[in-house]
Amino acid sequence: MWGMIATWSMSLDGITAASQALDHNSTAADTVVSAVKQVEDFPFYKSVGYGGLPNEESEVELDAAYMEGDTLAIGAVGGIKDFANPVMIAQRLAQEKVNNFLVGAGAEKFASIHGFQRKNMLTQRAKKLYEQRAKQLSEKLSPYSGHDTVGMVCLDKMGSMSSATSTSGLFMKKAGRIGDSPIPGSGFYVDSQVGGATATGLGEDIMKGCLSYEIVRLMKEGKSPQKACDQAVFQLDEQLRERHAEAGDLSVVAMDKNGQWGCATNINDFSFVVATAESPEATVYVANAHADQTKIEAASEQWLENYFAKRGASGK
Amino acid sequence: MWGMIATWSMSLDGITAASQALDHNSTAADTVVSAVKQVEDFPFYKSVGYGGLPNEESEVELDAAYMEGDTLAIGAVGGIKDFANPVMIAQRLAQEKVNNFLVGAGAEKFASIHGFQRKNMLTQRAKKLYEQRAKQLSEKLSPYSGHDTVGMVCLDKMGSMSSATSTSGLFMKKAGRIGDSPIPGSGFYVDSQVGGATATGLGEDIMKGCLSYEIVRLMKEGKSPQKACDQAVFQLDEQLRERHAEAGDLSVVAMDKNGQWGCATNINDFSFVVATAESPEATVYVANAHADQTKIEAASEQWLENYFAKRGASGK
Repeated sequence: MWGMIATWSMSLDGITAASQALDHNSTAADTVVSAVKQVEDFPFYKSVGYGGLPNEESEVELDAAYMEGDTLAIGAVGGIKDFANPVMIAQRLAQEKVNNFLVGAGAEKFASIHGFQRKNMLTQRAKKLYEQRAKQLSEKLSPYSGHDTVGMVCLDKMGSMSSATSTSGLFMKKAGRIGDSPIPGSGFYVDSQVGGATATGLGEDIMKGCLSYEIVRLMKEGKSPQKACDQAVFQLDEQLRERHAEAGDLSVVAMDKNGQWGCATNINDFSFVVATAESPEATVYVANAHADQTKIEAASEQWLENYFAKRGASGK
Repeated sequence: MWGMIATWSMSLDGITAASQALDHNSTAADTVVSAVKQVEDFPFYKSVGYGGLPNEESEVELDAAYMEGDTLAIGAVGGIKDFANPVMIAQRLAQEKVNNFLVGAGAEKFASIHGFQRKNMLTQRAKKLYEQRAKQLSEKLSPYSGHDTVGMVCLDKMGSMSSATSTSGLFMKKAGRIGDSPIPGSGFYVDSQVGGATATGLGEDIMKGCLSYEIVRLMKEGKSPQKACDQAVFQLDEQLRERHAEAGDLSVVAMDKNGQWGCATNINDFSFVVATAESPEATVYVANAHADQTKIEAASEQWLENYFAKRGASGK
């Protein structure tokens, strides 16, 4: 068995390539990082890697993480600037004995010493989008909830699992802001003996419930990935509404060690991509919140057409 | 009922003051931050705040966090330099709607704008200690596992709970290294409807099991604080030995919403401090790992004498 699941339709190209690689015995470790790198490199995704929106000081600061399900080794970077592939730096950090999570200038120094590719990550397109959005924001006074972190969970034929995340973070974030994506247990968690999960949404709220850890824990208790996702998301959503007056966007995907998968969301139109040995063609699904259960269906032709048209036009 | 529990004997003065404050109806929010601030301000504690050991570039970079058990609001700073009280900045960040976790230069900018006290946190004493240790390290080639994070959980008479942490992190850490102390669910977690927990030890390993979240979760299931602590620590220790070849230092303290408390550790001579309405005098306990259970006893007169002598002499 092999399988892979990833947040957002922007993962489609990465998962398509990953599907072939996994079928040809590629490791989860290599595959998940290659697939996230593909999303980082694509200039039109405005919330991950190259072309990501800048923070309120017009700097693109990126967060990324990598976790190894066999050893529980973790590597993460937060608030890193001017490097092309934060996810590769995170994976390299997971090899260190300690100092696995580096932020800011320290993370950049590590990346520089280890020869990772430098790149100005702010594109003209992202700068323009940022200015448009900032203008809308000041006019409407409604905050935009940035939500489009790429997160993936991968199972290889050898039974090893890995997870990785990458994001430019919340729209209009303050300099130095860290979301859930590099936070172990919140943005991602994977254990090859159980399964893995990864989250996207309002990082500040995802952290309040250690959402990815909780999903893996529920799977360890015997819950299916789908039940684990629904239970964790809707319980946290309820807690946040009761205790914190409101709940931010929470969306998750999970896969267990047998390649079974699940997804939950408290929003509408959350897309994700899956490929497994049983169903190797990378497929985009669309999920919608419905009471305390998530409704999932394969994306229609029309949905996909709209997505590709929009991606080309405005950088979604 | 009220109660407070904190890692390490260095918390004794803070908990002594906190005990009186809580008895006089002080809130958990105010009390926990005052008590951590007291540890940050004391110049002879070499692993927290002023007088904390610098990183490998001779810079004192500090991590701190604050969590509110009623609302689950979180504030955290990572790798912050030149501010006197990181825990106060973390508490202030918990009031923000988003951007609650800031690192590096961004965290310093926030602190500066909000008028927090600047301070050169590197003392001559810490610099000298660092040089001695660095020399020992290069001679013996054995890494020192920095372990002395202050973490506290507090319950006030109104039934509200809060938690806070502060640390200068792992000895000889790389610039920008973040440990478990500012990571929600790993270094700390608190829910006023259940209880709270906080951890100290090798942050890189604590993160692999979301240790504080797991303890609170076990208490929510009905486990006593002591059973929850033992179960979480020894399960993670076992997992790390099996999967990662070795387990770093893991020590935790927890208190539930009724003021019952617990502690677990996989090392020897882990000290912590407790005060409760039932037993209001701040008491130092010493815990030792013993198979998969922690043995706890009140610190002897001799132990305390040694501690105070050592604190004055070498900055423990």
